Amino acid sequence: MSTITVEASKKYDIIVEENLLPRAGEEIRARFKKANQIMLVTDDTVDGLYGGIVSESLEKSGFTVHKYVFPHGETSKTFAVMVPLVEKMAELALTRSDLIVALGGGVTGDMAGFAASIYLRGIDFVQIPTTLLAAVDSSVGGKTAVDLAAGKNLAGAFHQPALVLCDYSTLFSLPEEEFSTGMAEVIKHGVLADRELFDFIAENDAKAHLGDIIPTNLVIKRRHVMEDEFDVGLRQLLNLGHTLAHAVEKLSNYEINHGNAVSIGLVAICKAAYAYGLAEEDITDRVVAVLKKYNLMTECPFTAAESVSVLLNDKKRSGQTINLAIPKRIGECYLYKMDVDKLEEFYRLAIG
Amino acid sequence: MSTITVEASKKYDIIVEENLLPRAGEEIRARFKKANQIMLVTDDTVDGLYGGIVSESLEKSGFTVHKYVFPHGETSKTFAVMVPLVEKMAELALTRSDLIVALGGGVTGDMAGFAASIYLRGIDFVQIPTTLLAAVDSSVGGKTAVDLAAGKNLAGAFHQPALVLCDYSTLFSLPEEEFSTGMAEVIKHGVLADRELFDFIAENDAKAHLGDIIPTNLVIKRRHVMEDEFDVGLRQLLNLGHTLAHAVEKLSNYEINHGNAVSIGLVAICKAAYAYGLAEEDITDRVVAVLKKYNLMTECPFTAAESVSVLLNDKKRSGQTINLAIPKRIGECYLYKMDVDKLEEFYRLAIG
Repeated sequence: MSTITVEASKKYDIIVEENLLPRAGEEIRARFKKANQIMLVTDDTVDGLYGGIVSESLEKSGFTVHKYVFPHGETSKTFAVMVPLVEKMAELALTRSDLIVALGGGVTGDMAGFAASIYLRGIDFVQIPTTLLAAVDSSVGGKTAVDLAAGKNLAGAFHQPALVLCDYSTLFSLPEEEFSTGMAEVIKHGVLADRELFDFIAENDAKAHLGDIIPTNLVIKRRHVMEDEFDVGLRQLLNLGHTLAHAVEKLSNYEINHGNAVSIGLVAICKAAYAYGLAEEDITDRVVAVLKKYNLMTECPFTAAESVSVLLNDKKRSGQTINLAIPKRIGECYLYKMDVDKLEEFYRLAIG
Repeated sequence: MSTITVEASKKYDIIVEENLLPRAGEEIRARFKKANQIMLVTDDTVDGLYGGIVSESLEKSGFTVHKYVFPHGETSKTFAVMVPLVEKMAELALTRSDLIVALGGGVTGDMAGFAASIYLRGIDFVQIPTTLLAAVDSSVGGKTAVDLAAGKNLAGAFHQPALVLCDYSTLFSLPEEEFSTGMAEVIKHGVLADRELFDFIAENDAKAHLGDIIPTNLVIKRRHVMEDEFDVGLRQLLNLGHTLAHAVEKLSNYEINHGNAVSIGLVAICKAAYAYGLAEEDITDRVVAVLKKYNLMTECPFTAAESVSVLLNDKKRSGQTINLAIPKRIGECYLYKMDVDKLEEFYRLAIG
């Protein structure tokens, strides 16, 4: 068992432990003595797998548990699903001492966390991630959001969880594709800030070492969140590979999932950064090899012109700049301010 | 002209000046050099009166102005009106440097401020209050919200404006009822913290002295906001009279407006506090006289039993406490923690 404490605008623990779900109620009760009601938010898939265990554990610790179950998938990360959740909490008269528990992956955590941030102008919420992506990335750091018609994550709030309970036994049964999506962020963290982590997952099977790998990743994420909670500086390094990734997801109409898009974005930034003279080493081949090992896509099916036009989204940005996270070598990155007019030329060095 | 600077999580100016609207663009441009697009949010009534002047002034200062006009009235303070506003901003690709300008009363400021707080996880917004209530109270302090089916202001955020432009010439033409509503908060501020203000409005016609009265009120509001931005202590004093007022509004199905409800609540708390031994003086008669002078209701049409049952809303609060702002004498109040089980007996001393 590892406990990692995050000290942002709110101080909170992340507990990483096998078979933690049956003890969720205990861990929450130990920290929230005044809470009476809990709104457990989860999707229909995760509810079938873990909804019962978690509800039971919460009830055993004396909480009155209400459940809000929504259809799984990104299409539920919307106001249309979130507003009825908030209305329901109001109807049940949850108070400022009560809690939301988000049980699931990134969609659940982002949407339920946003609901927690606005209900009564903010109540506490607990993250219980059940995907690798949520465990190593989205459950920590307080970025909550829903999607709008014009794009993903366009409405939301910074609202730190009050506790994160990561039971990594839930990750063993993940579909391969879902596991790979999380590995894209793990590999990103290695390239970004931890050469040892990068080498370790290159040489070993990550799934057999989750009890070590997850805390290592969370320490990296924590550092960036604590130094720049509101994402105006250092935290933007966590966007390594994501600038292009967002364009790839959009261009593919979200047929290419987030993990594969990040993977494609990572390869492109490594290659382009070296060719453009911004990196010290050409790490592309090593990065490609690790990404392939975890079954991730590495070739971009779109041109630089297509990608950059989607990435900029409107034509009025000419003359503006964009902050790009640039890998100098494995384990070290920096932010580089690039004129948006140079972006196409830059990505053309990698994806043609 | 008065400029009052608020130093909360964000530092911002409140400018109080006659005929300020035609200079709105200048004042905004002086502070927001990087903004290109402005979403001007206003209701259909206010748009007809001031939409043109403000748009023109903004355009003259080089902003691209989009307008979001919604039907006037409290029923527009909902997700149903706010979500399309946020979707529209995303469609127009407003960036983090762009602005929302809220032109109108409390409904407009609360709803547009909430939209600003969630769009891209927070962009700046400017308040241009056109009611006395908004000018002396709701435009300052960063409480934003929408109503839910279960009650008012149940979903929202703390999000301070980046600038408040108060042109009090807009207040001369307010309907009498709307002016009285604002006066209820002015009288509340007097009872709460400023005996001189209380005596002044008792002896003079407030409407003839808005250039002095508004800044005096804002200084009181500012002090409470700066000492307790997130409403966990001192700021709760601003709820003087509001505990009962919320119940009265609800019980009347909002036929009794906010100003009259606050007025009724003020009288009740003065009377009950003295009878219960919590106040040093019985200020009820003096407070009633000033409220009547400004055409506000002072008799509660509901019983203590009815009011308290609505006020507590759910039955699970037994054993809990509620913070009441208690007037000790004119100009001095304190917070008193009352067991909720005592509330009915307390209010019965005032409203039977």
